[in-house]
Amino acid sequence: MKEIKVGLLGFGTIGTGVVRMFQQNTELISQRLGAKLVLASIADLDVTTDRGVVLDEGVLINDANSVLTNPDIDIVIELIGGYEPARTFVIKALEHGKHVVTANKALMAIHGEELLKIADKNGVSILLEAAVGGGIPVLASIRENLGGNEFSDVSGILNGTCNYILTRMTEEGEDFNAVLSDAQKLGYAEADPTFDIEGIDTAHKLSILISMCFGTWVDFDKIYTEGITRITSLDIHYARQFGYQIKLLAIGKKVDGVIEARVHPTMIPDSYPLSDVKGVLNAVRLQGDFVGPVMLNGSGAGMDATASAVLGDVISLSRSITNGSQTMTPTLGYQTEKIITLPIREITDISCHYYIRFMVEDCPGVLAQISTVLGESNISIRSMVQPEQQLGGCVPIVMLTHGAKECDIQHALDEIDALDSIKEQSLFIRMENDLA
Amino acid sequence: MKEIKVGLLGFGTIGTGVVRMFQQNTELISQRLGAKLVLASIADLDVTTDRGVVLDEGVLINDANSVLTNPDIDIVIELIGGYEPARTFVIKALEHGKHVVTANKALMAIHGEELLKIADKNGVSILLEAAVGGGIPVLASIRENLGGNEFSDVSGILNGTCNYILTRMTEEGEDFNAVLSDAQKLGYAEADPTFDIEGIDTAHKLSILISMCFGTWVDFDKIYTEGITRITSLDIHYARQFGYQIKLLAIGKKVDGVIEARVHPTMIPDSYPLSDVKGVLNAVRLQGDFVGPVMLNGSGAGMDATASAVLGDVISLSRSITNGSQTMTPTLGYQTEKIITLPIREITDISCHYYIRFMVEDCPGVLAQISTVLGESNISIRSMVQPEQQLGGCVPIVMLTHGAKECDIQHALDEIDALDSIKEQSLFIRMENDLA
Repeated sequence: MKEIKVGLLGFGTIGTGVVRMFQQNTELISQRLGAKLVLASIADLDVTTDRGVVLDEGVLINDANSVLTNPDIDIVIELIGGYEPARTFVIKALEHGKHVVTANKALMAIHGEELLKIADKNGVSILLEAAVGGGIPVLASIRENLGGNEFSDVSGILNGTCNYILTRMTEEGEDFNAVLSDAQKLGYAEADPTFDIEGIDTAHKLSILISMCFGTWVDFDKIYTEGITRITSLDIHYARQFGYQIKLLAIGKKVDGVIEARVHPTMIPDSYPLSDVKGVLNAVRLQGDFVGPVMLNGSGAGMDATASAVLGDVISLSRSITNGSQTMTPTLGYQTEKIITLPIREITDISCHYYIRFMVEDCPGVLAQISTVLGESNISIRSMVQPEQQLGGCVPIVMLTHGAKECDIQHALDEIDALDSIKEQSLFIRMENDLA
Repeated sequence: MKEIKVGLLGFGTIGTGVVRMFQQNTELISQRLGAKLVLASIADLDVTTDRGVVLDEGVLINDANSVLTNPDIDIVIELIGGYEPARTFVIKALEHGKHVVTANKALMAIHGEELLKIADKNGVSILLEAAVGGGIPVLASIRENLGGNEFSDVSGILNGTCNYILTRMTEEGEDFNAVLSDAQKLGYAEADPTFDIEGIDTAHKLSILISMCFGTWVDFDKIYTEGITRITSLDIHYARQFGYQIKLLAIGKKVDGVIEARVHPTMIPDSYPLSDVKGVLNAVRLQGDFVGPVMLNGSGAGMDATASAVLGDVISLSRSITNGSQTMTPTLGYQTEKIITLPIREITDISCHYYIRFMVEDCPGVLAQISTVLGESNISIRSMVQPEQQLGGCVPIVMLTHGAKECDIQHALDEIDALDSIKEQSLFIRMENDLA
């Protein structure tokens, strides 16, 4: 039976999951593949820590270069994370004619174009299923079976930390900071949670989804990225009253050749399938012109689910190798030379419905002042909640708007926030009403 | 640019969808594929009906054989449906060295082993994504990116007609027959709905899922198949009271090398993702040892969604052809010679929790009689509802059991139904408590 030799860079949590899966399912995988996968070499700076898996003598080494230059190795798995030395290692692997499988969303979001062009030049492939949605087979589905569709929308819940925090805030009415601290204790959030809670991790994943769905390179800096730190349990409470949930959504759309690429807290109706995605789960919703809406959900992180995605890519590449393919299916599903760079719409140019919360001095006439500014800015109000008055206190006024332009909203709120009766910066949350 | 020539057998609703998708997305598909798909020939007995699509002169013919023997054609799409002449045509296509894409679940459930072995012998492939779950890319996911997993469970809502009927019964409290008749008017149910409402269509799809997940041939007759015709709005009402929904589920499990393969109305907790799948939507839930639970949902039928799955398979085969593959990825994800025939558990040998509804004469002592029989049969009751008494009338007693053996349930109900105080045949519904 033909052997496919695999090298692994990075023997941390995910790497350990990959090794366990290789070992546990070797026989099964060879029944599917008709070839034997061999994990020939693992490189990590730490070659002493016990990861709870038994390796043959000499498999674990501390020198990445000897994996990258080993002529026996067909596929290199990169699980180092971060930009460097991951980028340099991936380039070296490609230039040595090795296919690469990576879980590194940051690397691919920022350096994807460079790396994919190097892969192309060297006649090898990079697969990255594990970079988006953990074990959920979303990238393979876009590339493969949904490949006959023109996509108009891709959206998703792509960060388990944020979804865990928002779910707990929703179900238990707790405050952001209390839940974050709990999430850190439970291992659902990092000690420095910035990448997660500020939406950066989600934006990395969105960048990859947009490239695949719309056949465009994405300038990462142009993705509008807003995290969940300003969301209060009060906003969640009002969202629930209106029949909505607040989720950190990644939203990609293509309208008239222009891309919307944005990550922000989003109010979606309770009735939408994405509303039911709870805790650390992830989900991606795709809208194709023929398939209609399709949703995939599952574990978005964790060593086992991520290992599943990594092994899936290794199997896919191994099949191409054993099938004697002369060329590989392109990473993004498009022939690389056909990928263009579509313009990305500025956030101020989008239109949607909005939730707005004003914190106002509780005195007569405030609502009239607010309404006047909104009316002058072409913003019409769909519904409004003004809780019972507490004379002299500071109370929220909450509104849902009809469709409005973001620039109008921002301009109106600047004007309203300058009023004496407004006691803190007003908050707005974008709504999505077309992801049923 | 290389051309891949495709022939189509059957120009009905789905066939028309396929032709529309070919025409509408030709340019997009060639950007992805790096080759041009050409729909070279379409065969149907009816060559006169206007399907609303424009074809080049000579493309539509009434002779399937000239498609099957045309040496220019690489891939044949079979959309005739049914067993014959579909089976004969597929065999002929394979023997002429053509890959086959089919949406024919009945054909593949009954003759899959024969056809796949013929494909193997001729070095060509059969793909069948459209046969299960319409546009949902579930078979490709099992075969490709989830292929490193050992699966323990596959379950799903695979028939839009049944799910539509049960959803309407649940949301509106209507009776089965009224909703069925409505569904027929709306085109969601056939004039003869037997295949759908008796669960046969679902069982065909389950057979394919089980083969792919567990690497086994399935003797279709051994799949326990029970439809939804006995479900009343009364049962749905009680299910709701207990916090459950009733869905027609396809359930495949592998436990200790034995397969459970069953289709029947199933009570699942409201909190389960499958509970949220409403109307004509389909969903499949997979449980892999590393990926954990993954759920995919979308349109399970309709010309466009089905066309998406068909085109996805055509693209996948076309990629292998343009990549110069010497062999193809096997249809079921396993090398054909590695597929075995695992035993299928008799329905009487399964264990689960049960909902039971007795229709009893409303007089004292009946509950004691029932409880005695259940106790003697090792069936313990988890909760019970006995509505207010209407003296002299016939009232339901509804129970949920703890885990019990199906043979014990059947035996106990036979004994209970023989009691004078039991006024009609008791009904039980199997519950699933491990598909969260």
